[in-house]
Amino acid sequence: MHCDTLWYHAHLITVDGPGLGIIENGVIAATDGRIVHVGAAGTETHLQPAQRIDCGGRWISPGLVDCHTHLVYAGNRAGEFEQRLQGVSYADIARAGGGIVSTVRATRAASEAELIAASLPRLDAMLAEGITTLEIKSGYGLTLDDETKQLRVARELGRLRAVEIVPTFLGAHAIPPGRDAQDYIDEVCNVMIPAVAAQSLAEAVDVFCENIAFSAAQAEQVFVAARQHGLAIKIHAEQLSNQHGATLAARHGALSADHIEHLDAEGIAAMAAAGTVAVLLPGAFYFTRDTTLPPIPALRAAGVPLALATDSNPGTSPLTSPLLAMNMAATLFRMTVDECIAGFTREAARALGRADRVGRLAVGLDCNLALWDIEAPADLVYRMGFNPLHARVMRGVSV
Amino acid sequence: MHCDTLWYHAHLITVDGPGLGIIENGVIAATDGRIVHVGAAGTETHLQPAQRIDCGGRWISPGLVDCHTHLVYAGNRAGEFEQRLQGVSYADIARAGGGIVSTVRATRAASEAELIAASLPRLDAMLAEGITTLEIKSGYGLTLDDETKQLRVARELGRLRAVEIVPTFLGAHAIPPGRDAQDYIDEVCNVMIPAVAAQSLAEAVDVFCENIAFSAAQAEQVFVAARQHGLAIKIHAEQLSNQHGATLAARHGALSADHIEHLDAEGIAAMAAAGTVAVLLPGAFYFTRDTTLPPIPALRAAGVPLALATDSNPGTSPLTSPLLAMNMAATLFRMTVDECIAGFTREAARALGRADRVGRLAVGLDCNLALWDIEAPADLVYRMGFNPLHARVMRGVSV
Ligand SMILES: [Zn+2]
Ligand SMILES: [Zn+2]
Repeated sequence: MHCDTLWYHAHLITVDGPGLGIIENGVIAATDGRIVHVGAAGTETHLQPAQRIDCGGRWISPGLVDCHTHLVYAGNRAGEFEQRLQGVSYADIARAGGGIVSTVRATRAASEAELIAASLPRLDAMLAEGITTLEIKSGYGLTLDDETKQLRVARELGRLRAVEIVPTFLGAHAIPPGRDAQDYIDEVCNVMIPAVAAQSLAEAVDVFCENIAFSAAQAEQVFVAARQHGLAIKIHAEQLSNQHGATLAARHGALSADHIEHLDAEGIAAMAAAGTVAVLLPGAFYFTRDTTLPPIPALRAAGVPLALATDSNPGTSPLTSPLLAMNMAATLFRMTVDECIAGFTREAARALGRADRVGRLAVGLDCNLALWDIEAPADLVYRMGFNPLHARVMRGVSV
Repeated sequence: MHCDTLWYHAHLITVDGPGLGIIENGVIAATDGRIVHVGAAGTETHLQPAQRIDCGGRWISPGLVDCHTHLVYAGNRAGEFEQRLQGVSYADIARAGGGIVSTVRATRAASEAELIAASLPRLDAMLAEGITTLEIKSGYGLTLDDETKQLRVARELGRLRAVEIVPTFLGAHAIPPGRDAQDYIDEVCNVMIPAVAAQSLAEAVDVFCENIAFSAAQAEQVFVAARQHGLAIKIHAEQLSNQHGATLAARHGALSADHIEHLDAEGIAAMAAAGTVAVLLPGAFYFTRDTTLPPIPALRAAGVPLALATDSNPGTSPLTSPLLAMNMAATLFRMTVDECIAGFTREAARALGRADRVGRLAVGLDCNLALWDIEAPADLVYRMGFNPLHARVMRGVSV
């Protein structure tokens, strides 16, 4: 049987259970961008590959999937970070126009070209660590024009680089300065979601359900509108307090509930029942010096799928390293190596509604690969500030 | 006046006080590897440079200095890390031959060529983030032959790459398996230190003073021997408990006392009086999930110089990113941006006894530079998992 490319002399992290689905000394083959064979060395004798790639004993994992980022924005909040270290209070920074409002202001003022230029170095840092699928949320525009601008920029990034971008509409990220929360949510539901859906600018709708943002009732209104327009739903929930947003989202069939440090037993049960993925964000936990751990042992016990993401954003997680996020998940959350790697592959793909397309090395899936100069999978999680990526393959092509 | 190279159209982080000694729109010039001019644009009109480098508005800092690493070792403890996450106790890992003993075993078994091959990727990761001076300790050999092998490898790394390596003899790192502590310390003092000094294999002698390693009395014995052979002294002190090692080291004129989470007021006063540098190691604090913060406000108040380092080592800080160490110092230790940058430049140079040669942009010092694609110095500290290094200059030459 003909195939385009065969990778051999490699160890495979298939993430296609049990565990990480390790195949030592394995082979993988692709045709037309899809995986057509995965197995131990010697199982490929029926294949006639046009190209053979000797991987030199390296390890191959699925290309990494970052399922929660706010990568597209303008402005720089390093100065605010510096002030905080000098003892300036968050309230004083907010009064001086800092905080998320400053990112909204800068993002609104930026042209699409400027937003692309600001975002590309962040995207390139992600790709340099093996990302092949990356979610990007809007949420720094907070007007129809500025939200759709962010989403168009996200789409454009996927044309400029060899990566699959998954856009999410997060108009309900913050109450815009000078707006009434309910009035704004009505606009999100009645104007923005229909427009985003009509232009196919997003796959899912997300909402920040928190005492400093939107209520559970408002989140539900967003979910109903999203569903009416054929969009999937996600939620930022239980980060600072328990608003029961994850329970609500699960009951509406959400793909994921993200953060969930303050999730309770009812929420865990609801997520388990619905198959809603828990997206854990250790970068934000670390950067904000949070001390409330997400209830990982209970989530595990209930069988809730655990994904990981960078939450790359300027305010609470200026992180562009999936490998560092894995280390933080292990170090701070005590997640195992298997959970960390599955969290950035198989489970992240599930959180984006594409478990059947990416995130595992299995026949029929996109041939998105990361080749690593490591001795064992644990090396990806154990080291800090070290990038052993050797090569990235996107839909069968080395990029 | 002739000079070799002029860098212009740059902002300078001179770290030559007050604060970071910022010169916006500055110039810097070098001849024969030394800095011959630093100033604002326009102050260089008397210079006739053979080469002019347009820095495109980037920022230039001194090349970074990592003053505490255990970079040269063999073996891999990622598997041990993985086991710990699966719930295996440290005691069980030690019983199975894990922990530092496994690194000692692997390092003893490795040839010099193998140690070089194992260490180069770690060194290269450091250089990629702007390091130009790097300390490397021995301490995984624990026999004369194996300690000197580590130190020869450290020296060789400095020949293979454009970096200044500062070797430190840390024979008193751990009690070798099967040895009596005092018997071993006698060998360190009477055999190893004389041999290391005679072969000029180290500039300083370090000792791990802790209830699981060597006593303060044994540390003092090491200091006396080091001094007799003309070597500077350093100490790993007060990491897990207060052994009063820092006080002792300061009274012996130590360059630095490192870790010092459990340092008391007497130790702070002794360090301040002696000018002993506090070397803070946030990577180890993070990785070991330590909760006892070093007494930074008191150190500041006493005027103790604060340096930072990666402590790169396989057991407690598998970190090869000075930028991430800066972020951890800010996030976990609440050190300011100025302190973080000075901690990896001026103060780190002081901890290595070469404050008059590296760590600042000032006339007469080595022209070791890091050029950064950043908007402001705070960017170096604020971001996580992002490397904005544009170029590195070693003794006047782009490398
Ligand atoms: Zn988020
Ligand atoms: Zn150390």
